[in-house]
Amino acid sequence: MPSYTAPTKDMQFVLHEVLNVTKTGIPGYDELERDFTEAVLEAAGKVASEVLAPLNVVGDTQGCVLENGVVHTPAGFDAAFAAMKEGGWTALDLDPEYGGQGMAYVMGTAVGEIFVSANMAFNMYQGLTHGAYAAIHVHGTDAQKRTYLPKMVSCDWTGTMNLTEPHAGTDLGMMRTKAEPQADGSYKITGQKIFISAGEHDLTENIIHLVLAKAPGGGEGTKGISLFIVPKFLVNDDGSLGARNAVSVGSIEEKMGIHGNSTCVMNYDGATGWLLGDLHKGMRAMFTMMNEARLGVGLQGYAVAEAAYQNAVIYARDRLQGRAVTGTENPSGPADPLIVHPDIRRNLMDQKSFLEGARAFTFWAAHLIDRSHRADDAEAEGLVSLLTPVLKGFLTDKGFETAVNAQQVYGGHGYIEEWGMSQFVRDARIAMIYEGANGVQALDLVGRKLAQDGGKHVMAFFDLVKDFIKENDSNAALKEGFLDPLKAASKDLQAAGMFFMKNGMKDPNAALAGSYDFMHLFGHVCLGLMWARMAKAAQEALDGGTSDTSFYEAKIATGRYYMARQLPMTATHLARINSGAAPVMALSADQF
Amino acid sequence: MPSYTAPTKDMQFVLHEVLNVTKTGIPGYDELERDFTEAVLEAAGKVASEVLAPLNVVGDTQGCVLENGVVHTPAGFDAAFAAMKEGGWTALDLDPEYGGQGMAYVMGTAVGEIFVSANMAFNMYQGLTHGAYAAIHVHGTDAQKRTYLPKMVSCDWTGTMNLTEPHAGTDLGMMRTKAEPQADGSYKITGQKIFISAGEHDLTENIIHLVLAKAPGGGEGTKGISLFIVPKFLVNDDGSLGARNAVSVGSIEEKMGIHGNSTCVMNYDGATGWLLGDLHKGMRAMFTMMNEARLGVGLQGYAVAEAAYQNAVIYARDRLQGRAVTGTENPSGPADPLIVHPDIRRNLMDQKSFLEGARAFTFWAAHLIDRSHRADDAEAEGLVSLLTPVLKGFLTDKGFETAVNAQQVYGGHGYIEEWGMSQFVRDARIAMIYEGANGVQALDLVGRKLAQDGGKHVMAFFDLVKDFIKENDSNAALKEGFLDPLKAASKDLQAAGMFFMKNGMKDPNAALAGSYDFMHLFGHVCLGLMWARMAKAAQEALDGGTSDTSFYEAKIATGRYYMARQLPMTATHLARINSGAAPVMALSADQF
Repeated sequence: MPSYTAPTKDMQFVLHEVLNVTKTGIPGYDELERDFTEAVLEAAGKVASEVLAPLNVVGDTQGCVLENGVVHTPAGFDAAFAAMKEGGWTALDLDPEYGGQGMAYVMGTAVGEIFVSANMAFNMYQGLTHGAYAAIHVHGTDAQKRTYLPKMVSCDWTGTMNLTEPHAGTDLGMMRTKAEPQADGSYKITGQKIFISAGEHDLTENIIHLVLAKAPGGGEGTKGISLFIVPKFLVNDDGSLGARNAVSVGSIEEKMGIHGNSTCVMNYDGATGWLLGDLHKGMRAMFTMMNEARLGVGLQGYAVAEAAYQNAVIYARDRLQGRAVTGTENPSGPADPLIVHPDIRRNLMDQKSFLEGARAFTFWAAHLIDRSHRADDAEAEGLVSLLTPVLKGFLTDKGFETAVNAQQVYGGHGYIEEWGMSQFVRDARIAMIYEGANGVQALDLVGRKLAQDGGKHVMAFFDLVKDFIKENDSNAALKEGFLDPLKAASKDLQAAGMFFMKNGMKDPNAALAGSYDFMHLFGHVCLGLMWARMAKAAQEALDGGTSDTSFYEAKIATGRYYMARQLPMTATHLARINSGAAPVMALSADQF
Repeated sequence: MPSYTAPTKDMQFVLHEVLNVTKTGIPGYDELERDFTEAVLEAAGKVASEVLAPLNVVGDTQGCVLENGVVHTPAGFDAAFAAMKEGGWTALDLDPEYGGQGMAYVMGTAVGEIFVSANMAFNMYQGLTHGAYAAIHVHGTDAQKRTYLPKMVSCDWTGTMNLTEPHAGTDLGMMRTKAEPQADGSYKITGQKIFISAGEHDLTENIIHLVLAKAPGGGEGTKGISLFIVPKFLVNDDGSLGARNAVSVGSIEEKMGIHGNSTCVMNYDGATGWLLGDLHKGMRAMFTMMNEARLGVGLQGYAVAEAAYQNAVIYARDRLQGRAVTGTENPSGPADPLIVHPDIRRNLMDQKSFLEGARAFTFWAAHLIDRSHRADDAEAEGLVSLLTPVLKGFLTDKGFETAVNAQQVYGGHGYIEEWGMSQFVRDARIAMIYEGANGVQALDLVGRKLAQDGGKHVMAFFDLVKDFIKENDSNAALKEGFLDPLKAASKDLQAAGMFFMKNGMKDPNAALAGSYDFMHLFGHVCLGLMWARMAKAAQEALDGGTSDTSFYEAKIATGRYYMARQLPMTATHLARINSGAAPVMALSADQF
């Protein structure tokens, strides 16, 4: 069975030596002293290794079972969920006014990585609650907040998000679920929603569904959509549970992975709901939490791959097969360990260099969200809004690829379910699809985010890269291995942007045909920037006489690998983008 | 449920307009007239669509079940297997002396693609028999051939290959299975083999296991290995079945995919076996059929993806979601079909341009095998030996990627097992692993095949590319879109080869660190060459006044896409190769 150990040392490095959290001046960051964050991460790591990780295979094997309208989660999930609540882990970065611990979002993100790595399907029950909490927290009335938030912060009640219908996925404007206003101010919600994660389960006494539906008078398409709170059990004025609402689970989907999470078809048969936020402004209410939700999915992409990587390393060190081409390294054994072979290392270095870059990128984005929320920094908000589709699309694509690479290290054993590597691949696959399929992320990036606020945020990003290169220009240790490749990659990104500007206006397809490549190109530049920063921090530690030279030297070597072997992808992405719309759009639909 | 239609028109195009099979002068190719091959392919396509494809999901869902030592295949597999035998499909390209139809290998390959696309797991039962047949056909005594081949040609008996042991996968030298010589000339085989595809099942009355084992006196490592025929039931002199042999199935593996094929742990407890080929030359006997076996797996890689692609196209045409950015294309409907969106097309074009290139590459390789076997052409044999690891490694990696892309077109529905797209991904995954994991293919290519016969075969390949470019230099229709990019890609491949020559001698790791990238670089150049040839053939048809302009124009447009958007990958692969061993080998094992 796979194991998992939280990479707390790598996390501490990002928090304290790359992001320098305590020196940012962001309100609430002052408590993030090294000892404090270490204690939190270690404690989370203990829960992850001892409670969550052992249930990961159980969840995959048993899945969720629907019997007489009740969904049974896999054996042990209820006890683990109770332990998570008991430890206060569900409330870490939530509002103290409703029982949360008020910690910074960047800490919630770091702890989130740990829990997702250990058991992605399990963690979704609280993850979705977090999303629903955020929507109510931002858009709810005081009464709604008082009614729902304390129970959601503690995870006594979980939350869900109901968007998709059978015929309306990305195109929510076509949805048919109706909301009819009632005399008492409530609405009757009627319709069917699909792909509802954690839609029904036996972990909590109540489930708070947030449901997009069309109320009369809103007009066509997405304009008519509003957001409603539809609890499984109605809540009495005193906070106790009242009548069962007219919402029920139709079936559980048989999925490729994340079997431990119940993905439900939900039927609303005149269920009682209350408007959340403004009438006919449901899309806006949804989108306010989109950045965080998508960041959460990007995190899933690399967090599952991190667990896969850890096991691949263990296997590569243990499994004896063949001899090193440069001479036997394990003369007393029947063969050398896999890890001596250059192509196994190539594979592991691909994984490691991606994962550490992805973590830095994600923590940085979380820190930008903190800056935007806690320090009211509009520039940080604009920047993270630009980076969100990159983070979601790039990290989930590369995360899946990384999980596949980790599986490959096992040879035939990787294909056997017993070893657990298949599950990582199957679980990681969903992150490329949900919360906006990655093609939609690319569209969001090129079609909306690039030009947002007059293109100001992408210019800010370029300045950030340029300034870093300039500031460190005299740093000989960084120049050749980091700054030069970063400069080249960033130039490719700018050239791609120029291509879109020049051609996208007369032919939008010229930009959209290259959108997916642009998302990946952007992702590589972000990870290149992260690695340049990490290398700088590591070099400073070495120059400062650290005793832990192995750790910091490994950081620099891993960064060099990324710059030398991953960053050259930007040239290929640019070449594809520059080929424009013609090759992509040449065929008629019947020529496929 | 997914559907499948054999792409007979595309196959005919490759056979008759690209490879010009009837004009090659290869013995037996004269019968491959257009009408004849069309009739064969259409008939195979009918069986595939009507009999095999409907069982694909059944096989995945039911899997194989072991009860009291008997493996039950999924419902309907026995009837379908009988239909395959009845139709003579198992004997297509086998030796007429033993009941085969003696057709060219290239035809067996084309028909094989059709059957694998329709149902990969099912087709493995006869595919493995084909491999075991080949070993006995080449290395068996006359008596062995008479005893086993007729029944294997008809698939009254199936065959298996037993190589792997729990601790010995790629490194077969460590195997422990023993063969003790008996007074009557037979051997007693004792040991455990794992990952044995079709190791036990209920489709036939007998199973002929080919087993690698160590007989006394052979020395250490792979030198001591011999190959043995171990039938499930011993065969009496009159051909009737005798006693049950001491071979049994220990368990069936729970796998990520190909559930319809029984992957068995096989226990040999003093089972009676007969030496096949020379004593202690078992590895050589295995390797004589390696090229074909690996070509067969490369074919699986793209054939499964072909089925996934076909369904993705249907879905993209049918599913209404969003509006075209350049203006509504389906004004009478609530939305436009997915296929109007540039990024969906980018995805579908990636799939299509790979699949058609892969088919041409595979048919070409099969044709080289025919040339080598039927026309005794040593150069063709050398060339296909060089290309085999490229074909296996590149086509299975890209085939898996293609299946994932096809799944992505479905959005959330792609993740639900009901739609069948997950199965294509899960099935395609194994082809990257078995018959030598793709890292081993890369090692074989760079460590052995490149330098084979003084590097003569890779030089022959370069000449082939160079000659094609030179011959068509004045062809304006090909120049910019095909010849120029092919020349650039081929130059990258040569530069990579030069890097290995210059650095590989003093440091083998410098070559091996780039081996995987070299395999992919080589694959792209092969597909680039195929596309240049296909474009030329299509252009000739158009110039000749064909009435089917849509088909040939689509070929050229699809080729242009590949050249413009896939071939630029060669530059990135070269950059990685040129970065050498240092980034790959920098860390010590404990720094991962």
